[in-house]
Amino acid sequence: MGLFTKDIKTINDLFLHQLQDIYYAEQQLVKALPKMAEKSTDKQLKQDFLFHLDETKGHVKRLEQVFETLGTKAKAVDCPAIDGIIEEANEVTGEVADKDVLDAALINAAQAAEHYEIARYGSLVSWARQLGRSDVAGLLQKTLDEEKTTDRKLTTLAEGRVNMRAAS
Amino acid sequence: MGLFTKDIKTINDLFLHQLQDIYYAEQQLVKALPKMAEKSTDKQLKQDFLFHLDETKGHVKRLEQVFETLGTKAKAVDCPAIDGIIEEANEVTGEVADKDVLDAALINAAQAAEHYEIARYGSLVSWARQLGRSDVAGLLQKTLDEEKTTDRKLTTLAEGRVNMRAAS
Repeated sequence: MGLFTKDIKTINDLFLHQLQDIYYAEQQLVKALPKMAEKSTDKQLKQDFLFHLDETKGHVKRLEQVFETLGTKAKAVDCPAIDGIIEEANEVTGEVADKDVLDAALINAAQAAEHYEIARYGSLVSWARQLGRSDVAGLLQKTLDEEKTTDRKLTTLAEGRVNMRAAS
Repeated sequence: MGLFTKDIKTINDLFLHQLQDIYYAEQQLVKALPKMAEKSTDKQLKQDFLFHLDETKGHVKRLEQVFETLGTKAKAVDCPAIDGIIEEANEVTGEVADKDVLDAALINAAQAAEHYEIARYGSLVSWARQLGRSDVAGLLQKTLDEEKTTDRKLTTLAEGRVNMRAAS
């Protein structure tokens, strides 16, 4: 997209642009998640991060399937939002001295990323349906469901154990 | 927080840091929302943005009440995540040529901000409860509920009218 050229003329253009945006975001998360798994000390949290890393690699492939189904080349565009979320995650977790508090901070950071994706995939599913592409909507809905499940798992782990340990 | 000094030693430090982070984010949204209202053409969307602007000003005041209740000075720290989300909102909406597609893009942008706040306030409420501060948890929960309601309103508006118009 060129600056000041107003390249988004239709909902289909907006849909494609935001597909390229989340394609970039998923790729950044594939890089970030192993570091988050490495930093975490809670065994379940580490496992959850590694499990979600595998899922995230699957989301990248699923997006490539979406691009292919739409007959367009898979392409990523810069996504300042996910860059900011990851930058902030690194800043905050880098400030934490205690390992149990670090686990709480890592969950907090991961949930910001999950919620970013939930917002984006939510719109993408709606737009795909509006465009009459129920095939693509179905693929994107699968990822949306997995992001929501990950978010819920992290909340359960935080409220069930990690926050308590961090406060003790 | 100083770089490399590992200033977050307890869950209370993490809680305070993230309160300062969301205090900054809310202030940025007070600046961004009038511009989003101005850009939107759907009458209901414009009203929703202006209504949420008033709520957001209330969230800033509520956070000041939280800081006061905790006996600490209200302070904002940089939040690269919300800066990235707003930067991306400006970039994408600046690319849109059609006014109905712009409304869809504005809703998408606003929902990314709402979900960021939902993630942050969710953790803040959990931590406040863990720290035995049900008074503060109650205040933060009120804001969390308002963010969730705003997100749902935007989804309803997108799926009920805006996306259809953008696709026509």
